[in-house]
Amino acid sequence: MDIDSTAQDKARFFAGAWGRVKALPGKLKAKVTSTAKSIKRLGQDDPRRLTHSLKVGLALTLVSLLYYARPIYDGFGVSGMWAVLTVVVVFEFTVGGTLSKSLNRGFATFLAGALGLGADYFASLFGKNGEPIVLGILVFLLAAAATFSRFFPRIKARYDYGVLIFILTFSLVAVSGYRVNELVVLAHQRLSTIIMGGATCMLISIFVCPVWAGEDLHKAIASNLEKLATYLEGFGGVYFQSSESDGMGTGKSFPQGYKSILNSKSSEESLANFARWEPGHGRFRLRHPWKHYLKIGALARQCAYQIEAINGCIGSDHIQGSEEFKGKIEGSCTRMSAECGKTLKALARSMKTMTDPYSSANTHVENSKAAMKDLKFALKAASLENADLAAILPAATVGSILVEIVKCVEKISEAVHELSQLAHFEKETVEPTVSPEKPPQLLHRGIIQPVLDGDSTANDNVVITIHEIISTDSPENEKACDQHQVPKPGKKIEAL
Amino acid sequence: MDIDSTAQDKARFFAGAWGRVKALPGKLKAKVTSTAKSIKRLGQDDPRRLTHSLKVGLALTLVSLLYYARPIYDGFGVSGMWAVLTVVVVFEFTVGGTLSKSLNRGFATFLAGALGLGADYFASLFGKNGEPIVLGILVFLLAAAATFSRFFPRIKARYDYGVLIFILTFSLVAVSGYRVNELVVLAHQRLSTIIMGGATCMLISIFVCPVWAGEDLHKAIASNLEKLATYLEGFGGVYFQSSESDGMGTGKSFPQGYKSILNSKSSEESLANFARWEPGHGRFRLRHPWKHYLKIGALARQCAYQIEAINGCIGSDHIQGSEEFKGKIEGSCTRMSAECGKTLKALARSMKTMTDPYSSANTHVENSKAAMKDLKFALKAASLENADLAAILPAATVGSILVEIVKCVEKISEAVHELSQLAHFEKETVEPTVSPEKPPQLLHRGIIQPVLDGDSTANDNVVITIHEIISTDSPENEKACDQHQVPKPGKKIEAL
Repeated sequence: MDIDSTAQDKARFFAGAWGRVKALPGKLKAKVTSTAKSIKRLGQDDPRRLTHSLKVGLALTLVSLLYYARPIYDGFGVSGMWAVLTVVVVFEFTVGGTLSKSLNRGFATFLAGALGLGADYFASLFGKNGEPIVLGILVFLLAAAATFSRFFPRIKARYDYGVLIFILTFSLVAVSGYRVNELVVLAHQRLSTIIMGGATCMLISIFVCPVWAGEDLHKAIASNLEKLATYLEGFGGVYFQSSESDGMGTGKSFPQGYKSILNSKSSEESLANFARWEPGHGRFRLRHPWKHYLKIGALARQCAYQIEAINGCIGSDHIQGSEEFKGKIEGSCTRMSAECGKTLKALARSMKTMTDPYSSANTHVENSKAAMKDLKFALKAASLENADLAAILPAATVGSILVEIVKCVEKISEAVHELSQLAHFEKETVEPTVSPEKPPQLLHRGIIQPVLDGDSTANDNVVITIHEIISTDSPENEKACDQHQVPKPGKKIEAL
Repeated sequence: MDIDSTAQDKARFFAGAWGRVKALPGKLKAKVTSTAKSIKRLGQDDPRRLTHSLKVGLALTLVSLLYYARPIYDGFGVSGMWAVLTVVVVFEFTVGGTLSKSLNRGFATFLAGALGLGADYFASLFGKNGEPIVLGILVFLLAAAATFSRFFPRIKARYDYGVLIFILTFSLVAVSGYRVNELVVLAHQRLSTIIMGGATCMLISIFVCPVWAGEDLHKAIASNLEKLATYLEGFGGVYFQSSESDGMGTGKSFPQGYKSILNSKSSEESLANFARWEPGHGRFRLRHPWKHYLKIGALARQCAYQIEAINGCIGSDHIQGSEEFKGKIEGSCTRMSAECGKTLKALARSMKTMTDPYSSANTHVENSKAAMKDLKFALKAASLENADLAAILPAATVGSILVEIVKCVEKISEAVHELSQLAHFEKETVEPTVSPEKPPQLLHRGIIQPVLDGDSTANDNVVITIHEIISTDSPENEKACDQHQVPKPGKKIEAL
């Protein structure tokens, strides 16, 4: 029996081990499959990544073969290695990045080589014993000073790599121990191979499927505006309707694309930095106002912060009691956010087509401002006798932040308009498509007036032309308001 | 006359030119002075920058002199150059950065060298004509694949430099054209010089005034919490008092330090990445939970977004009409923000001293929650008959966002507590210093009760012990509220 049980144990052990061994290929297969999937996803997300990899391979192969065949190009010798090194280190994803690194490397090598020769000559004056000491001191001082200069934000942003190469080349030349006339030959070889490597990179990056940092920045800013627009356009409907149906505005169904804008600063700055190195390309001229994009980006982030605050308010809105109040401000709030969304969409579109956004975006800005005033009237008209302020608060806060968003969107509109002037965008052909937006605004206008007098139903049918809407803040209109016993908006409009 | 005027013109021209030449030294002097000042400021902002520059100079001088004296260390030969190159490229500001780059460089060189040898051997099988073609294909494939792998976020974060060096070394070895046995000698020399350069960097960065990325991250997170605390502690006083005196809460006198937190994500992530490479140092062990700091950092940013929204609301608050309402919520809002500030101060202090924050921070969290409830009561009690909702809105929004901040601070407190457990912070010695905070809260508690019955003045003098405050949300207390005809808080507390 004992032997039998041991045999059984053994059999079980081997079966288990065999199972594990059999399972191994399965696990490996799963691992390989998941890796393959993530590689595929990475490539599909941005196919230019694949192109970039092939371009690096191409540049490196070209330069390597030149180096390999050095008996033919005998002038280069071992320093052909520097061409390979240059290609690997200098080839960046964007044209601007590649140009910036190539030019930095080239100039820094030239400058540091010349200074290194001078240092060598200077040190040789101190005789065999003094030379290493003087060279050591010079290398120490220059390396320390250059390293410190890398902490300057402006140098860090544009010439960081150049300073690095400067330190490197200076040390190599200074302490190489060759005599000056040997060094000149060596320096010439090294510089020419670096130029060769750098030129290969620059040519391939510019002429083979170029990835322009400037274009990327332009598209990134436009797409950020679109993300904000998508949130704002959908906001009114989702917020007011979801809470009507189930009382839970949990914010889960909102598009969360805007969140990526919150941390976009560093990538935008590096793209703008690279874009400055790029020659004119496509619709962008040489001195395109890249810096101005950072301003628009900062305003878009500002708007995203406000949306983040709204999102926080929505998540904590678990109450039913505010439905009545919500209903009262629904019209104006929905319109405010929708018009902001439309403004941003128009701005994004105008950036994409590079046309002046003035006429299309401005109508929406004016509409959103008018909706802001409507909200103010709605707030004034809301009867608060049997309402609980604590229950009203979440919806009121959403309204209040929406007012901030309207202001922010107006600033973005101004900034994009400024950009369109700086970059000489084409004038837009004015389309009459904006007028259909008006009637709903006017219908909602009626909602805020029930406290004034009995004819609110009559107001619902009033149709006013566009001119009168845009001029809602003209003195005439304020007078008209007075006649209906509504207090003058005056300065308080600002407080919304 | 003609000649005279020409002479005068000439004289004027020369005078102008001379003026410009005379002004040149002045301008130059001004330029030099301003540069010198900015250098001084850069050094004073963080004296470690100066130390770092000197350290780089030292490392480079040491390695350069070794290279210079290569007749003595004859084994190294020309490849001693690689030691210089390694030092320049690898020496980073933080220990973690230096270690990460050195180790990446070392391992990548070793691996790529071995693979390159293999590729050379493999290609040699194809004969004199086939060899360059096979080598070219291999270099192309490997460079493209490795470049593509750099787009993986995980590889990008930790091994980006390693992959770069891998491509570089593989290409150099594969196409060097030496025969395999020559290459082994060369590879050995190159690897040993790289190790020498890397080791010099690592030793100097660890033992000469080390700058630990982990410690920097720890301090940065603690200082971010402190910046938030400074804003919140000052907020109540500045917001409510400035608007009382001049009606203009322009937000100019608020400390704006929190703004730097909005864009802190990338620097925190890179510090956390470097910190993982560092050995145990000071109070941090080897496997310190660095990732957890990113969680706290994200929550602090969340809080900063809310503060940014509040800041926006304040800037647009130009109205006088809300003073009465403001007065009603002043007590609870001031206390909410002050207690949040104190919580964050306590958390920052506990991080700095590495003690468990539970007891000190929790009292403030409970206090801020109690103030949140007070705000709710104040809102319920506020009489709205003759108030204008539009005028009330800005202050109400501030209150509403403060509620979000209270929740956010509670999450931060939990996250820091979690960190203290993961990182085995010391247990705090409970100090009785928290009790003096209580009486003001109770005095304010009286403010919200005038609607209940006439004895509000009597309430002002009530003094309750700490135990009863912390248990404000216990059923007994709710019952007590009921007896005074105040509605039960129930679920609606959440809605604040």
